Amino acid sequence: MASSCSSDGKHFVSDPKTLVKNSLCGLAIANPHLSFDEQQKVTFTKDLADLRKKQVTLFCGGGSGHEPAHAGFVGHGMLTAAVSGHVFASPTSSQVLSCLRRVYSEEHGTLVVIKNYTGDVLNFGRAVERFKSERVNHDQPLPKVATVVVDDDVGVVNPNDDEEGGVGRRGLAATVLVYKLAGACAAAGGSLDQVKAVAEYAVSNSFTIGCALNAASVPGQGMPRSLDSDEMEIGMGIHNEPGFATKKLQPADVLVPDLVKHIVGSVPFQKTTSSNTKRRSVLLVNNLGATSNLEMGLVTKLATESTRAQGIEPVRVFSGTYMTGLAMPGVSITLLMLPDDDAQCTDMLNLIDASAYCPGWTNHAHVVDAGSTDEAAQGPKIQIKPASDPIWEHVISEAYSSVVAEEPQVTLLDQLMGDGDCGHVLLSGATAIRDAAQATQLPLNDPAAALAQISSIVEDAMGGTSGIIYCLFLDGLAQQLRALNISDNSSLSPQVWGKAMLGALDTLYQYTSARPGHRTLIDALHPFALTLSESGSLDAALEAAEEGARSTAQMQPKRGRAVYVQSKDNVADAGAAGLVAVFKGIISALRQ
Amino acid sequence: MASSCSSDGKHFVSDPKTLVKNSLCGLAIANPHLSFDEQQKVTFTKDLADLRKKQVTLFCGGGSGHEPAHAGFVGHGMLTAAVSGHVFASPTSSQVLSCLRRVYSEEHGTLVVIKNYTGDVLNFGRAVERFKSERVNHDQPLPKVATVVVDDDVGVVNPNDDEEGGVGRRGLAATVLVYKLAGACAAAGGSLDQVKAVAEYAVSNSFTIGCALNAASVPGQGMPRSLDSDEMEIGMGIHNEPGFATKKLQPADVLVPDLVKHIVGSVPFQKTTSSNTKRRSVLLVNNLGATSNLEMGLVTKLATESTRAQGIEPVRVFSGTYMTGLAMPGVSITLLMLPDDDAQCTDMLNLIDASAYCPGWTNHAHVVDAGSTDEAAQGPKIQIKPASDPIWEHVISEAYSSVVAEEPQVTLLDQLMGDGDCGHVLLSGATAIRDAAQATQLPLNDPAAALAQISSIVEDAMGGTSGIIYCLFLDGLAQQLRALNISDNSSLSPQVWGKAMLGALDTLYQYTSARPGHRTLIDALHPFALTLSESGSLDAALEAAEEGARSTAQMQPKRGRAVYVQSKDNVADAGAAGLVAVFKGIISALRQ
Repeated sequence: MASSCSSDGKHFVSDPKTLVKNSLCGLAIANPHLSFDEQQKVTFTKDLADLRKKQVTLFCGGGSGHEPAHAGFVGHGMLTAAVSGHVFASPTSSQVLSCLRRVYSEEHGTLVVIKNYTGDVLNFGRAVERFKSERVNHDQPLPKVATVVVDDDVGVVNPNDDEEGGVGRRGLAATVLVYKLAGACAAAGGSLDQVKAVAEYAVSNSFTIGCALNAASVPGQGMPRSLDSDEMEIGMGIHNEPGFATKKLQPADVLVPDLVKHIVGSVPFQKTTSSNTKRRSVLLVNNLGATSNLEMGLVTKLATESTRAQGIEPVRVFSGTYMTGLAMPGVSITLLMLPDDDAQCTDMLNLIDASAYCPGWTNHAHVVDAGSTDEAAQGPKIQIKPASDPIWEHVISEAYSSVVAEEPQVTLLDQLMGDGDCGHVLLSGATAIRDAAQATQLPLNDPAAALAQISSIVEDAMGGTSGIIYCLFLDGLAQQLRALNISDNSSLSPQVWGKAMLGALDTLYQYTSARPGHRTLIDALHPFALTLSESGSLDAALEAAEEGARSTAQMQPKRGRAVYVQSKDNVADAGAAGLVAVFKGIISALRQ
Repeated sequence: MASSCSSDGKHFVSDPKTLVKNSLCGLAIANPHLSFDEQQKVTFTKDLADLRKKQVTLFCGGGSGHEPAHAGFVGHGMLTAAVSGHVFASPTSSQVLSCLRRVYSEEHGTLVVIKNYTGDVLNFGRAVERFKSERVNHDQPLPKVATVVVDDDVGVVNPNDDEEGGVGRRGLAATVLVYKLAGACAAAGGSLDQVKAVAEYAVSNSFTIGCALNAASVPGQGMPRSLDSDEMEIGMGIHNEPGFATKKLQPADVLVPDLVKHIVGSVPFQKTTSSNTKRRSVLLVNNLGATSNLEMGLVTKLATESTRAQGIEPVRVFSGTYMTGLAMPGVSITLLMLPDDDAQCTDMLNLIDASAYCPGWTNHAHVVDAGSTDEAAQGPKIQIKPASDPIWEHVISEAYSSVVAEEPQVTLLDQLMGDGDCGHVLLSGATAIRDAAQATQLPLNDPAAALAQISSIVEDAMGGTSGIIYCLFLDGLAQQLRALNISDNSSLSPQVWGKAMLGALDTLYQYTSARPGHRTLIDALHPFALTLSESGSLDAALEAAEEGARSTAQMQPKRGRAVYVQSKDNVADAGAAGLVAVFKGIISALRQ
């Protein structure tokens, strides 16, 4: 047992006593279709007065701590209202009665959805009976109020249980499916009998199992208990009730199939679905509160596959946060088995597909599949026409040799102020380009195409930030040459190169905030390009680059690797030194 | 530092290397409008091929672990596609390029939304430049690709920072607002320039601050570090980057106003909004991953109030899970300041209000406020006409005396097998009824009305499960009498009472699974009602109740308080004994 858990027990809370009320206020603030009765903690849709003239109304409720359930499902197509108790505690029957009075449709009637917990069943029941008794006093016909009690949990039943002997199965995430279906039926004009029948179908045919990696901390109370760091619980409830088994943590691809098998093997599932031959289902994968959405995606995939592996087709799959136990790290899986009869199955799917307008439910978006665009994603089939060019080949070869010669010094500089890989990374790039040139793989008669191709080689060979900096510069250079309408080497002068390099620096500057003075390779690149474009002199440009690289020894690092290590005096930037090596080789080749 | 945290480091995961790919598969399974390119980890809307003929397309992306960002925002009205890297790591430029090629609209152009992190900016930038270079090779016009870089974080800037000196502000939850607005503009037929202008407006005018109670565990890596159990961090990033301040945990009503003040006091906010006089905003309250939705509601309420307290009106408030750092227990608050110009402000609000169809965004539902139904919720103004009745008053008085006499014995039984409060609770109920009768507050000439009224008194006075059991029975009894059309005491015979009691038991049985033999007060109530209805003999009924209560001493508890304590031989159920005391008093009064 870990008692010093560093995030457990910490909450965004002021006074636990007012937390529920204030939280529901916040819900209504962020969802302008909701009104909130603070006194009775009843959340209802703002047009309730109109709505109850038009359709069967329905509400659910229960203890708080299960958000978005239940108030987050109030909206057209789902709940008309929700009534909330304290955290993990049923609302009182007076609260429920107030909700029922508010929601009740004289003309169409009202469905009350209850989760199967003793407190909820009694308090909701008492409210319904008080409501009837009120009406009895008024010489009115008996009110049209129907109730359903959701008990989808198959995590408390073991095959040897006497079903008559227990307190029954608990209401879990299928509750949301129950009022999704009933709400859609009501919104579509269904009668109270029809709405109730749909709800009862969903209750009878839904099966849920939960699994948690730990209990959830309760605001003002902390952790009720804590699993060991290698444990998980199967069948854990949404109020921190212990599960039926504590197990060693399993990988998801073992755990999730086991959970689905547990559902399918459970007595309630077996009894109810024995005559179900088409075995179609709605699968709902529910975040119990603090599972990352990244993991939820994996669990959803595995649950879908596991359901199929059990011979059950999940014709709809929902994944999200529906019925939580505060911030419990856990998931639950619900199977709602669909009717064998195709027409009834279609009716049920139409209800599940109908739009609902509330913060908790995400409608499946429907778009027409326009076919794959995979081909586009592969990019244009660029016809690279490799061509030889003696000057380019000589330049590439000399640049490579220069990098080989300078690599130890660049590595040393980077070891002094950096992570030491700068020299090797640069050499990898130079080697890859040299190899491509030797193998005549580059379109050297088309300088823009050659530079674009070299850029791709550099990215693959170098990687990392310095690789992409080179790439972006080379891409910019290629674009500049094309923009200058230069399609062969004959029209290239040093000054044109210099101008193109300045333009390429602008491209690079779109993506890095490194500028001259920040102690990066820019301190060699910028003066080189500037001097070349102004003077057309290769030697002057090289000198400017060398001077720029030397000057980095006096600079405070502001970008790149050296930011993270302690400054040392008189150590030049390795990246700038590496680039000077490249320039040296190029210019030495062009001088010859 | 706590190293033994019991839920940190536990995950629903199989192989961390395939987690992202499989998770995105799961997302596409649960959202049939999505397609997924597994190789490049690009999620896109299925009608992309059609969509890019119709409108400007847009995509975002970045490291995984921020779900629902970014793939969860792919859908009509928002992103056309999203490209995902490994957890907390930028996608490669090849992945981004593949996404851009797939998404690019030849006719309308494409907007690329980038979060301001070095890796993202360089890889997305390189992809854009490669894409342009590809096109350069094809003698096509320069492609219509625009980029925006989101940098809404005000948690890394302190007032003395040299803004030119840092790596810039990070992209946080405002990224979602940027592509919400840009996506709506694109869907409405905006040109690339218009879409880009909207995105740039949102970038320039959005400000976010995060706060976390702990870092988030990374699948396969665990916790990078851990806050102490009384600490929180302000300005924590979405990749576990440390915040600018570690503080002692504060109550939410201190913390949240401080966060809003920090935003409003930050240099970027002050610089940008100095000329903003109308000070209208969109407020986005974001769950960083593992904050309970209950707490989110509170934070939303406080953030709304705090924003108002700063003289800024939040004309739209969004609350939910938009941009996470895996399962980080934390929240972030974003203010998007709206244009001063009313027409421009309306345009911006129209874009924020436009529907988007993706799993990550919940549209605000719009309903017409139909006015309050508070009056209905108060219930009908029941005209209770108190009336005296000597027999009723005598019965009530004698029942009270009997409960007083038996209370010590009932308490003793409950102390032996229960929690010991059964006697006192029963006496509270009996006292309250006696007091009401003595004060002539009961409509004793109308038995159904009297029972309904007594039921309410019982609920208030007794509470708990046993109170509600009594209430439900009394409610059922009242309804039975009304159904039998009994409106005064003259038509009541013992047999009628017995039949009504059997009917009331049916009402009770709807809400409890307790039945004869389960060792509850039902073991006295059921035989009493049955005997009375069959024989009409009060004495026989009392005898049956006494026998029933005695028999509980031999029963295994199956319901109620005794389930939780060890069985003892020959201890009768306290609830049944208490009910017998009530019956004794009633019958003693009627005998006289």
